[in-house]
Amino acid sequence: METQTPPGVTLTLSEARDLAFRVLRHNGCDAENAGAVADNMMEAERDICAAHGLFRLPWHVKSLRCGKTNGQAKPRLEQLASGVVRLHGDRGFAPLGHRVGLPILVERARENGIAALAYVDMYHVGALWPEVEALARNGMVALAFTPSFPYVAPAGGTKPLYGTNPIAFGWPRPDQPPLVFDQASAAMARGDVMIAAREGRQVPEGSGIDVDGRPTSDPEAILKGAQLAFGGYKGAALAMMVELLAGPLIGEFLSFEAQQDDGGAGAAPHGGELILALEPGRFGDPDGFAAHGERLFAAIAAQKGARLPGARRLANRERTLKDGIVVPKGLHDSILATMDRG
Amino acid sequence: METQTPPGVTLTLSEARDLAFRVLRHNGCDAENAGAVADNMMEAERDICAAHGLFRLPWHVKSLRCGKTNGQAKPRLEQLASGVVRLHGDRGFAPLGHRVGLPILVERARENGIAALAYVDMYHVGALWPEVEALARNGMVALAFTPSFPYVAPAGGTKPLYGTNPIAFGWPRPDQPPLVFDQASAAMARGDVMIAAREGRQVPEGSGIDVDGRPTSDPEAILKGAQLAFGGYKGAALAMMVELLAGPLIGEFLSFEAQQDDGGAGAAPHGGELILALEPGRFGDPDGFAAHGERLFAAIAAQKGARLPGARRLANRERTLKDGIVVPKGLHDSILATMDRG
Repeated sequence: METQTPPGVTLTLSEARDLAFRVLRHNGCDAENAGAVADNMMEAERDICAAHGLFRLPWHVKSLRCGKTNGQAKPRLEQLASGVVRLHGDRGFAPLGHRVGLPILVERARENGIAALAYVDMYHVGALWPEVEALARNGMVALAFTPSFPYVAPAGGTKPLYGTNPIAFGWPRPDQPPLVFDQASAAMARGDVMIAAREGRQVPEGSGIDVDGRPTSDPEAILKGAQLAFGGYKGAALAMMVELLAGPLIGEFLSFEAQQDDGGAGAAPHGGELILALEPGRFGDPDGFAAHGERLFAAIAAQKGARLPGARRLANRERTLKDGIVVPKGLHDSILATMDRG
Repeated sequence: METQTPPGVTLTLSEARDLAFRVLRHNGCDAENAGAVADNMMEAERDICAAHGLFRLPWHVKSLRCGKTNGQAKPRLEQLASGVVRLHGDRGFAPLGHRVGLPILVERARENGIAALAYVDMYHVGALWPEVEALARNGMVALAFTPSFPYVAPAGGTKPLYGTNPIAFGWPRPDQPPLVFDQASAAMARGDVMIAAREGRQVPEGSGIDVDGRPTSDPEAILKGAQLAFGGYKGAALAMMVELLAGPLIGEFLSFEAQQDDGGAGAAPHGGELILALEPGRFGDPDGFAAHGERLFAAIAAQKGARLPGARRLANRERTLKDGIVVPKGLHDSILATMDRG
């Protein structure tokens, strides 16, 4: 999606990381929590996924200041079964938990062939692809699911019930970055609707409905009404599945319960995430699976116009490592403002 | 989808089962294989999922007669890891394999909390929901994936590469049938495109493209061109994931490789299936998860116009158990014809 770039502040990724770190430290995070969140945010900025980068920093600050999110969180592991690890987030942001949990998930998957990490009691604002990419870099095939707040109407309904409910997938590739996708079950990511509203742009038809259930391309009307799932009832079924897998299955909130828990504080969604890791070395073709996957990717690339999921993010990555990122002026100002108050 | 019902033959499910069984026996299946396939087909007929019922019987016969599919298959289990079971299908149809494999998958999931069944060397023509429904009736949360033949174009491409690549999901419910969905990553199930072509009906826009890559609603043109994924690039990403999970990961064919393997014989797709089972008793909320899931379903049902996935199939089920099914005359004739030759 090409957009007019508003006036902005150019930062290297290192400068942007430092800014995020200082803001989080100033607003109640210890160094470990602030570092994990800032690094995670930089993975988004690096890939020019603005909706999960610094754009989310004011929300992090709000979550900390209202007392909901614990900036000093100490995530704790509990093994529920040989193949199931529960990670208690201690009301912290997700990224520090991943640092604690993902290595154990990999260990469990190597042992059993497949394993699950059920992450509970945390605040999730970030993208999911960093988790599955990290797992795929460790040789795993990975899936991740998380609910959020009620934003998306169920199939046939008109009121928000499901989160945007992304599904992320990672697949290891020899000698290059993993194949990764991370896609909302909603037609649009929430952050993209919000950014369109801020910038006064219309969104594509099918993105959502107004409070009366009528289709609209006005992002403000959608934010008051409901988003729609991608692909009609099939996307809605996936959104429902994400609610169940990363909610009731693991003993965590559904999206509408997360909103009740928030109680109007405006913090990030309090809830869970389910991550699955499959060790391809234990699935029947340990020596051949990787080259076999490449045969599919080659067949995709051989079609004119076709491209692999994640290709744009990887291209962005090369660019931002050289040229840095541009933070919109208004966002940069609002981030600096969080350093004045406190 | 309401359609004009062509003239047909009314059968009880038991009569239809008996017809399928006799046809399969006459065409080279032993009683065990024929019984498993006929029962599986009746699950589709019972739910009025015509595309996976008797409609597929001539294809089964063709697969057997050309010598590709083994009607005397003896599926064999191999444990690859504590949480991974491989099921060698011995070139048979899938349903007998499920009878052998699913109980072991349940056992493994109870032991480890999560387990996988990698089903290889089989011919898959049926729906996936019978597998996940059976698992959910045993208390499991279940996911299933299978490729087929190259029918669907990748995102941005115009030539068929992916199978229709369904994803099925099952969730146990207290005191009622499991919540189940089984949806193609393609905008339409292959069988539905074929039935529309046979009946001379147009299909919805977005279902596919012709051989020159142009959008069309003509099912004949789509069968020569390519189907499209549901929901654009997101559905295509899911189709790609299904290829990887139920192909290279488990050492089985990609859809385009299955077609090469067929070599023009016109048999069913030869390949694999991946089934995951999660034991909710080992995920952190063994006593609460089921009632918690019901709270989501109640919130869906509370919205005017919204309905749960699978609701129509369950309603159909009650009806066909009473009233039987109507087999289109042409299909019934072609089935009887497979008993004459041989």
